[in-house]
Amino acid sequence: MNIEGFRHASYQAIDRICDYFLSLEERPVLPSVQPGFLRGLLPNHVPDSGEDIQQIADDFRDTILPESILGELYSSSIANPGFNWHCSPVSTELEEIVMDWSCKLLGLSDAFLNTSETGGGVLGTTACDSVLVTIVAARTTFLQLNPGLSQQDLVLYITSQTHILGCKAAAILGLAYTVLEVAKEGDYSLRGKTLLAAIKKDAGNGRHPFFLIATVGSTSNGSVDRIDELGPILVSNGIWMHVDAAWAGLALACPEYRDVCQLEAINKYADSFCINFHKWGLVSLEASALWVRNRQWLMQALDVTPEYLRTIHVEDNVNDYRNWQFSLSRRSRSLKMWFVLRGFGIQGLQGYIRKTISLCQMFYKLVENSSDFQLVGRPFLSLAVFRLRPKDSLLFSVNADEQTLNDLNRIFHRKLLIHDLFLTQTMLDGMFCIRFNVGATRTEERHIMNAWKTICSQIEPAIAEWVKYYVP
Amino acid sequence: MNIEGFRHASYQAIDRICDYFLSLEERPVLPSVQPGFLRGLLPNHVPDSGEDIQQIADDFRDTILPESILGELYSSSIANPGFNWHCSPVSTELEEIVMDWSCKLLGLSDAFLNTSETGGGVLGTTACDSVLVTIVAARTTFLQLNPGLSQQDLVLYITSQTHILGCKAAAILGLAYTVLEVAKEGDYSLRGKTLLAAIKKDAGNGRHPFFLIATVGSTSNGSVDRIDELGPILVSNGIWMHVDAAWAGLALACPEYRDVCQLEAINKYADSFCINFHKWGLVSLEASALWVRNRQWLMQALDVTPEYLRTIHVEDNVNDYRNWQFSLSRRSRSLKMWFVLRGFGIQGLQGYIRKTISLCQMFYKLVENSSDFQLVGRPFLSLAVFRLRPKDSLLFSVNADEQTLNDLNRIFHRKLLIHDLFLTQTMLDGMFCIRFNVGATRTEERHIMNAWKTICSQIEPAIAEWVKYYVP
Repeated sequence: MNIEGFRHASYQAIDRICDYFLSLEERPVLPSVQPGFLRGLLPNHVPDSGEDIQQIADDFRDTILPESILGELYSSSIANPGFNWHCSPVSTELEEIVMDWSCKLLGLSDAFLNTSETGGGVLGTTACDSVLVTIVAARTTFLQLNPGLSQQDLVLYITSQTHILGCKAAAILGLAYTVLEVAKEGDYSLRGKTLLAAIKKDAGNGRHPFFLIATVGSTSNGSVDRIDELGPILVSNGIWMHVDAAWAGLALACPEYRDVCQLEAINKYADSFCINFHKWGLVSLEASALWVRNRQWLMQALDVTPEYLRTIHVEDNVNDYRNWQFSLSRRSRSLKMWFVLRGFGIQGLQGYIRKTISLCQMFYKLVENSSDFQLVGRPFLSLAVFRLRPKDSLLFSVNADEQTLNDLNRIFHRKLLIHDLFLTQTMLDGMFCIRFNVGATRTEERHIMNAWKTICSQIEPAIAEWVKYYVP
Repeated sequence: MNIEGFRHASYQAIDRICDYFLSLEERPVLPSVQPGFLRGLLPNHVPDSGEDIQQIADDFRDTILPESILGELYSSSIANPGFNWHCSPVSTELEEIVMDWSCKLLGLSDAFLNTSETGGGVLGTTACDSVLVTIVAARTTFLQLNPGLSQQDLVLYITSQTHILGCKAAAILGLAYTVLEVAKEGDYSLRGKTLLAAIKKDAGNGRHPFFLIATVGSTSNGSVDRIDELGPILVSNGIWMHVDAAWAGLALACPEYRDVCQLEAINKYADSFCINFHKWGLVSLEASALWVRNRQWLMQALDVTPEYLRTIHVEDNVNDYRNWQFSLSRRSRSLKMWFVLRGFGIQGLQGYIRKTISLCQMFYKLVENSSDFQLVGRPFLSLAVFRLRPKDSLLFSVNADEQTLNDLNRIFHRKLLIHDLFLTQTMLDGMFCIRFNVGATRTEERHIMNAWKTICSQIEPAIAEWVKYYVP
């Protein structure tokens, strides 16, 4: 949708919200629908091509109430705490449906569908929240299966490339954690043998690993843990595997990236899987999709139902999404997903993902062909990590030590920050590096070229400043 | 603002969002402002009277970027993860400011202001999340002060009237909890002597209470714990007091309700205080305001900062709100607060609160004067709890046992659910009761009268059904 299309659709959204408010008094307070009503009304997968916004808006009026900002706008107009099926059937069922659509879009196993026997998906706020919820479910399940143990006997596994959500979750829940090492030579992927050694060591110390956060597309440099190697070891040791693909997981929408994202192993071994549609999925914050292989694991940990939350639908076995999360009330996040998935369609989303990856490839070829820069690690999807390392400069010859290069790159990074770029930094194996990521729908080749020009323009000034500070 | 005013303001919002998108390429990527820039530009309290929406919209364009739905609409148009001051200065500072505005609006102590030496406020998602965050902060602080102890030595205090968030939080964090008894005779308020007895008993068992959830306006019946009695005991035992006023706290905006909500004791003793602006504060989900007396308690528990999140502003001591919550990314929730607080003004909010309370008073006078119903407990603010108890009926005379009355009221409640009312139920001291709460801006006297008519119309059918089922 272009900007004028957005303006037109938004005017209409406003008019319909006004109609809704004007007719509020005539509308029934209580839902008259039966559980499952919505599945019959909607298709069971994302449309191949993007649909016309008018069709989506009409469906909203006719089915739901009666593109992301529009979804949010409509969603804001409905007071909807969403904790029980009964107080918001359409919100609950639309969430079940868009999660199933997304599951199919990404090629995830049918075991994760809400229509499956045991699995299911829920749309939460952030990947941090999603991992917290799954750790609590895993801890409860593990302690039930091992009645002699208590929380302080447990240990959580992360790697040095796991997103900060790992050790923050451990701190929040008061759990011990072990950081498993990943090596530069293995592209910073967690390997099976490292995991095995850690399990063996913990067994000797009487500590019980119960949860591993495996990453597909780490924040620092896009590394991918070896789910295929880790899976069998975790299964045989009764350890939960959570796959955090918050950023990179959207690439699964394109079949050609499924192997590199280890989809087959994820489908075989992951107990839970998380991606953030607000990262690379064109949906506005917050939209963190979490799938679990067994929804009962969440419910037995999180279902605490007092009298004032019981509804007459308990016996219908309806889904109350409050039992999949920490909070009771919840915003309806499914509407914006629904607008985006329908508005873009499978092909539209694939086209967008492919375009951002190809723009990033354009950038890292510029880096590769430059004698001033060095790629750090292998670029992955739409992320390239690099640092300044002027090969022709006597000051920074091949023998320049890491400290010198880090000093230079810190100065260089600060110089970039005062221009029209926002590139964040990271540390990899002691190397200070700069991250280049493409994600916006409006980014074109000329923006990449402009960024490259800006980056190159700061080489000389950065070296001059380094000389001023560090050369005696 | 009426519906036509909303339509006009929304059209304008859409046009301005389009202008924003059209000018995106010319806008700087990085903020050029210095920490604290926004305080100088905005007043330091909520305006007395509601402001014109045009003024607010112009300020949004001129100051921020460029009523709740409008705030959400503008907020959806900005991609803004909000975890660092640096990646969203205006979002961070506007949140600090609206939290300070709200602090003053409610008459909370200056110790809770973000501009104070140690306290501060943050706008989160729900009261469930707010209490989880404070429990984690309290646990970390308590264990630091008592180095010999571990998490399993701790115990959390709630009452039988505490919202379900209490035992759900304990389940999530793997903490033991004790339910302190509250009595019907004391209006279901937690008293000092009950707390003292529990502390004494736990000391004998080697358990360490570290956190109490005190409630101002319980979900079941609006009961208020005796903060004044609990405060000194908690202080002398080093126990954190969290005051959950999620629903009732908004009444503090009206000076005449401050005593009954125990404002003075809250200001003296509460370590943390929570209200949900999405409940009775006219703001859409999610908008849970949390104030703490010492923001360092949150940060020392929740600040985990890797290299890729460090910004050049660390040395400026800027506020990174990610360290006040579990998640890293966060939606900008302050914009909708800002629109509502300015659009209504202090007098507008007070008028709305007073109107809903007076409508509820109208309802409970109808109940009091009816020989068919009984008020259960004392109505509080806009909440009345009642049950069917036909005094003139031989079947349900004064001597009718509780089981009989509960059977009757369950039937009665189900009958009400098929009409134009959504009244939830609760259990108080073994009595099945029905909750009547007024909260919508558009509710008028005629709606209360209609509700009363509907309620009365179901007495006969409910009794008839009870007879059919229960009389041999």
